[in-house]
Amino acid sequence: MKIVLDCFGGDLCPQSAIDGALLAVEENEGLHITLCGDEKVIADYLKNKVYDLQKISILNAPEVITNDDVPTMAIRRKKDSSMVVALKALANGEFDGMVSSGNTGALLVGASILVKLIDGVQRASLSPLLPTIEENKNTILVDGGANVDCKASMLREFAIMGEAYMKAVCGIKYPKVALLNNGAEEEKGNALTKEAHELLKNTDINFIGNIEARDFLTGVADVIVTDGFAGNMCLKTAEGMGKAIFTLLKSYILQGGLRAKLGYLLLKPSLRKLKKIMSSDSVGGGVFLGVKKVVVKAHGASNATAFKNAIMRADEMTKANLPEKIEEALKDKTIA
Amino acid sequence: MKIVLDCFGGDLCPQSAIDGALLAVEENEGLHITLCGDEKVIADYLKNKVYDLQKISILNAPEVITNDDVPTMAIRRKKDSSMVVALKALANGEFDGMVSSGNTGALLVGASILVKLIDGVQRASLSPLLPTIEENKNTILVDGGANVDCKASMLREFAIMGEAYMKAVCGIKYPKVALLNNGAEEEKGNALTKEAHELLKNTDINFIGNIEARDFLTGVADVIVTDGFAGNMCLKTAEGMGKAIFTLLKSYILQGGLRAKLGYLLLKPSLRKLKKIMSSDSVGGGVFLGVKKVVVKAHGASNATAFKNAIMRADEMTKANLPEKIEEALKDKTIA
Repeated sequence: MKIVLDCFGGDLCPQSAIDGALLAVEENEGLHITLCGDEKVIADYLKNKVYDLQKISILNAPEVITNDDVPTMAIRRKKDSSMVVALKALANGEFDGMVSSGNTGALLVGASILVKLIDGVQRASLSPLLPTIEENKNTILVDGGANVDCKASMLREFAIMGEAYMKAVCGIKYPKVALLNNGAEEEKGNALTKEAHELLKNTDINFIGNIEARDFLTGVADVIVTDGFAGNMCLKTAEGMGKAIFTLLKSYILQGGLRAKLGYLLLKPSLRKLKKIMSSDSVGGGVFLGVKKVVVKAHGASNATAFKNAIMRADEMTKANLPEKIEEALKDKTIA
Repeated sequence: MKIVLDCFGGDLCPQSAIDGALLAVEENEGLHITLCGDEKVIADYLKNKVYDLQKISILNAPEVITNDDVPTMAIRRKKDSSMVVALKALANGEFDGMVSSGNTGALLVGASILVKLIDGVQRASLSPLLPTIEENKNTILVDGGANVDCKASMLREFAIMGEAYMKAVCGIKYPKVALLNNGAEEEKGNALTKEAHELLKNTDINFIGNIEARDFLTGVADVIVTDGFAGNMCLKTAEGMGKAIFTLLKSYILQGGLRAKLGYLLLKPSLRKLKKIMSSDSVGGGVFLGVKKVVVKAHGASNATAFKNAIMRADEMTKANLPEKIEEALKDKTIA
């Protein structure tokens, strides 16, 4: 598999991206990674590294799209940026998949315009794979924030794409698909979710009905379908709540005297494990479903491990022929 | 102050409601509470209680509206229910405020139809007072779930009503009002929040702009304005996340052997404090803003303390003349 990696645009780039790539090729026999970005900077950083020269290439792209750039303008004007050069090479068939930690909006626009959408897809979704309280069980959230104004027919596509992902990449035979709603009962919802519920009921998927946001992380569903605005609310609330809990606990421990401090020391491994799950690499990043090739968004603050994981995911998805599977699923499930 | 208490419809009713009322009159000199519901059941329960007979009355209402009842139908047909009888007596001017832990939808419909909306209010909102990570600082969420399809002009009313609440009841001189959005930048948002942002900018309030859901509990704003669907997403995600964290921590402690168990014992007071804040009585209950009289919704699972707190809040709001203050604020802030 050939993956192109946008090495610029993230907070710790290019070092974290390059280190992540080196970790990924070390772990993965058949993987080849092309590092896209300013070749001088990349070559300079690679000088002191030991790696298999056959598995790493460089694709020169001196410009960088930053988070301050307006997405559409950036894609149109910064033609020599690492993101645009990588996207174009991906579109031309030079690579099987791409990973970037750059400007999310620009990546969405760029993937949709340059790599293009799968036939029958109205809009690409940005879908994070979420941790759940069940060990080794993930849920995919479609959409996690790319589309803040949705039609019910888009939510139907999200459901089909999410199902295809869980089948093809996670090997789940009959993924449970749920609609995120303000109540579990069928008659609950706003105008959008009521209409979407009807559509999902009549689509050939394993639709388990509405779930409330309190079930966001319980693993009751394999695929959670929502518009990007509500998806963003859930993701950001979960993030804020995680932070709030650790902040409060810290202040209680400080107020709690010696007893609490000792308790904290003894409980530290458990609390660390918890913190790690809660600030999971999955939250904030995700895959663009609906694009003709595999494009994975690593979160902006990705370190080398997060990049390695994102590359591994892109590799899994390309191996599973995810874009083709999504195209087939959408064709199969056209409403008569 | 004269408060009418709907003693039926909650999970632990009528016992918890009646006990809550007795606690409230004991703490509060000038308070009189009328217990509304089946008089035989209430009188029977009061038999063994010691209380000031001058401060407690009973209003007979043999029927009960349950959570399975369809709101509009229930209000129309169950004329002898504790909720409808209490609402009608409130509307007639027999009481200053009302507390109920019954069917939220029915209470919203009943308050809007029977007690009626303040002039200029399109829809009442259900607004919980949320805890924040800052000690003794609360944020009011308008709307917390009553209105799942909103127009921008409704969000403007929510902002004005929330501001009036924080001024009148919490004594905050210039409440900071924020719009819940998928990004902090002014240009971010879906169709609704973009339009609402423009309206709020041009309203005579202390509008601090958009905030993301990760700031839901940080106390950066005194009033958080949102449509009820997004508000529900945040409330329920926070609830689910709180539960998920404690569930995971418990399982890690069980896996962590003697060391973790000892740590847990030492840290128990801090963890309890945390759990108490996170499962705060505020979340799930709230006040209906926009109704001509004070109506407080205690959450369905309220125990006696939660009922007492809800009654105290209703008392505070009636003393502060909240409905009048909201009416004035809406008049003052009419767009020219």
